[in-house]
Amino acid sequence: MNNVDSLYQYGTLALLVPGLFEGNLSLTDLLSHGDTGIGTGDGLDGELIILDGIAYQVDGDGNVNEVKDDFTVPFANVHQGAFKPLTDVDASLNAAAFEKKVLDATKWENTFFSVKAHGKFKFAQTRSINKQPKPYPGLVECANNQSVFKKEDVEGTIIGYYSPQIFNGAAVGGFHLHFLADDHSMGGHVMDFEMQSGNIAVQRFSKLEQELPVNNQDYMDHDFSKDDIQKAIGEAE
Amino acid sequence: MNNVDSLYQYGTLALLVPGLFEGNLSLTDLLSHGDTGIGTGDGLDGELIILDGIAYQVDGDGNVNEVKDDFTVPFANVHQGAFKPLTDVDASLNAAAFEKKVLDATKWENTFFSVKAHGKFKFAQTRSINKQPKPYPGLVECANNQSVFKKEDVEGTIIGYYSPQIFNGAAVGGFHLHFLADDHSMGGHVMDFEMQSGNIAVQRFSKLEQELPVNNQDYMDHDFSKDDIQKAIGEAE
Repeated sequence: MNNVDSLYQYGTLALLVPGLFEGNLSLTDLLSHGDTGIGTGDGLDGELIILDGIAYQVDGDGNVNEVKDDFTVPFANVHQGAFKPLTDVDASLNAAAFEKKVLDATKWENTFFSVKAHGKFKFAQTRSINKQPKPYPGLVECANNQSVFKKEDVEGTIIGYYSPQIFNGAAVGGFHLHFLADDHSMGGHVMDFEMQSGNIAVQRFSKLEQELPVNNQDYMDHDFSKDDIQKAIGEAE
Repeated sequence: MNNVDSLYQYGTLALLVPGLFEGNLSLTDLLSHGDTGIGTGDGLDGELIILDGIAYQVDGDGNVNEVKDDFTVPFANVHQGAFKPLTDVDASLNAAAFEKKVLDATKWENTFFSVKAHGKFKFAQTRSINKQPKPYPGLVECANNQSVFKKEDVEGTIIGYYSPQIFNGAAVGGFHLHFLADDHSMGGHVMDFEMQSGNIAVQRFSKLEQELPVNNQDYMDHDFSKDDIQKAIGEAE
């Protein structure tokens, strides 16, 4: 594939809600769909940042580890990077202002796109979590047990995706951003930041290639009608 | 493509709710993704049934017309047919019992699949609608203006898709079935039926290939936050 017009998603956000954290896709298979992305590991084993074909895991202690080919994921997004410059950053932007700036400049509310920003941050605040033991807890319980990391004066990359709200539940409706410091000193799922300078690039998709773990019996047997997916996502994401 | 493991969807159900009925994909392009499917035409111009690579339109007067290559669609699902027999029908099944029988036998609630059934029906009740003029009304208003057709003792084919509820809004959560009589005397979007004999076949997908009309400015500019998509779909579908 590696179509620059297509976003690949493995799993759904919804399957994480009841704790279906099993990694059913290997990193090798994931990277066959692109060189850029985000995700999480087997058992919710940290937060993934994939840049230029290399996958980094921010674990629950905040360590940044390069991930091996046999690492597996329950949920991830990747695409073949072909970003176009959107704007330079010359005034301070927190996460909300960053997202507003990108949407105002692109007008892409109704389709999937990727955003990649590199520059200097007054601070970046992220979260991650250690691999959960079986039987897996639900996503909301995990969110309450996450570790939060904050670093001042850091250079790094924001990478992630925007999905239309109609896909919330399958994907993360709105922005889903991860961060990785250039020196690999911290990273994770973005909670907030203040970007001071740098640049923002974007890549629009006309297609979502959604793959489901149909060979995972726990997934196929699960009764999602008992999960309040939207509420849980609101609390956990 | 034509991967037998992948369902192609053009547009979303949600875009029909505020009346974004413009046909942005030609039949030729649609059929490049498979030989089997359902959909609707430009301006909500009837209900489509695609069997063995031939697309039939049931118009608002109930006529069944073979559709030309330049016919365009705002919303459609197609896939490359590779069905497997599921069960013979030897006791009368209405639409609800049919759907329950298929789900009970497959246990595929959590993934996309196609269902194709051929046989004798005590009756089939369908609906369709004539092409709407611009400015397009909303989907709920159109649903109130549809024509309903009922035929007793008819042989024909049920063709359609099941989508997990988490995708409701993007797709039709649950079953979305169309019907075509063997003699092309009637057809349309299934409202109800009573199947008496015949067989049911199914085809499971692990992937949804979702394409959005990113080059249609009306779609890209639309503010979906003002549409109550779930409520409208409940009323119209």
